[in-house]
Amino acid sequence: MNHIISVLVENKAGVLAKISGLFSRRGYNIESLAVGPTDDEKISRITLVVDADEHSVEQIIKQLYKLINVIKIQELEPSNIVERELVLMKVNADSKTRGEIVEIVNVFRANIVDVAKKTLIIEITGGSQKVKALQDLLRPFGILELVRTGKIACTRGSKY
Amino acid sequence: MNHIISVLVENKAGVLAKISGLFSRRGYNIESLAVGPTDDEKISRITLVVDADEHSVEQIIKQLYKLINVIKIQELEPSNIVERELVLMKVNADSKTRGEIVEIVNVFRANIVDVAKKTLIIEITGGSQKVKALQDLLRPFGILELVRTGKIACTRGSKY
Repeated sequence: MNHIISVLVENKAGVLAKISGLFSRRGYNIESLAVGPTDDEKISRITLVVDADEHSVEQIIKQLYKLINVIKIQELEPSNIVERELVLMKVNADSKTRGEIVEIVNVFRANIVDVAKKTLIIEITGGSQKVKALQDLLRPFGILELVRTGKIACTRGSKY
Repeated sequence: MNHIISVLVENKAGVLAKISGLFSRRGYNIESLAVGPTDDEKISRITLVVDADEHSVEQIIKQLYKLINVIKIQELEPSNIVERELVLMKVNADSKTRGEIVEIVNVFRANIVDVAKKTLIIEITGGSQKVKALQDLLRPFGILELVRTGKIACTRGSKY
């Protein structure tokens, strides 16, 4: 099962290597990972998705806490978060197919961010299912490049 | 100076650890990193931003090519790419300040993706400057959480 783990770390050289090394030594493949500075530039947040069982995730979290430079770790509950990822796709598109692709893109409220003679670049933001659905529809045209950020997530505030 | 490096790798446990380890041993801090599977699930793409001079970047690329599991490396030219990142920000917002925040968010064509009694979650996609501008405007209200994916980029197709 996929788990989303959010880790606050000091923004220093080598911290990412330590964390990814910990996963690698235990043989867990990181499905996706996104890291960037928070509003405080001395602190970065790593959001990672890992496919492992409950017990393994608990062990990973315990081990992560032992690393210096790690400030806080949270396993995010899918029911209580906003999760998003950003994907750029470059697809084949000529004068014959462009119209059809634009229609599909509009339905998904995705954006076209580059137009060239034989290609389009499409930007889509959303959950994994939305991205996958668009990807499946565009595959027949030919996806030349697909770059994804990996998931990030934010816990929802307390509701009314 | 910041350089954007795009690395195609086999989607296997340990690859990210090897790559981030290489940067760490040489003392380069990875400013941001995003990794996720491409349209072919056996292959992942890592997009990373590193602050280093030209010469160091050349050295890093040479070293990266020596790693097994690395398929292709590209340094992306800022003038010829579409670059984007996705950011989620949770900000303080009560009945008095919510209206003002919503106005700011609309100007930036950002989206509000969660509303609670005392907080809002805002989603914004764009280049670093747009994100920074919104961040600066929202900081006075109180940014409680800021999660960013790190930059991803796609080379533009050949223009008309």
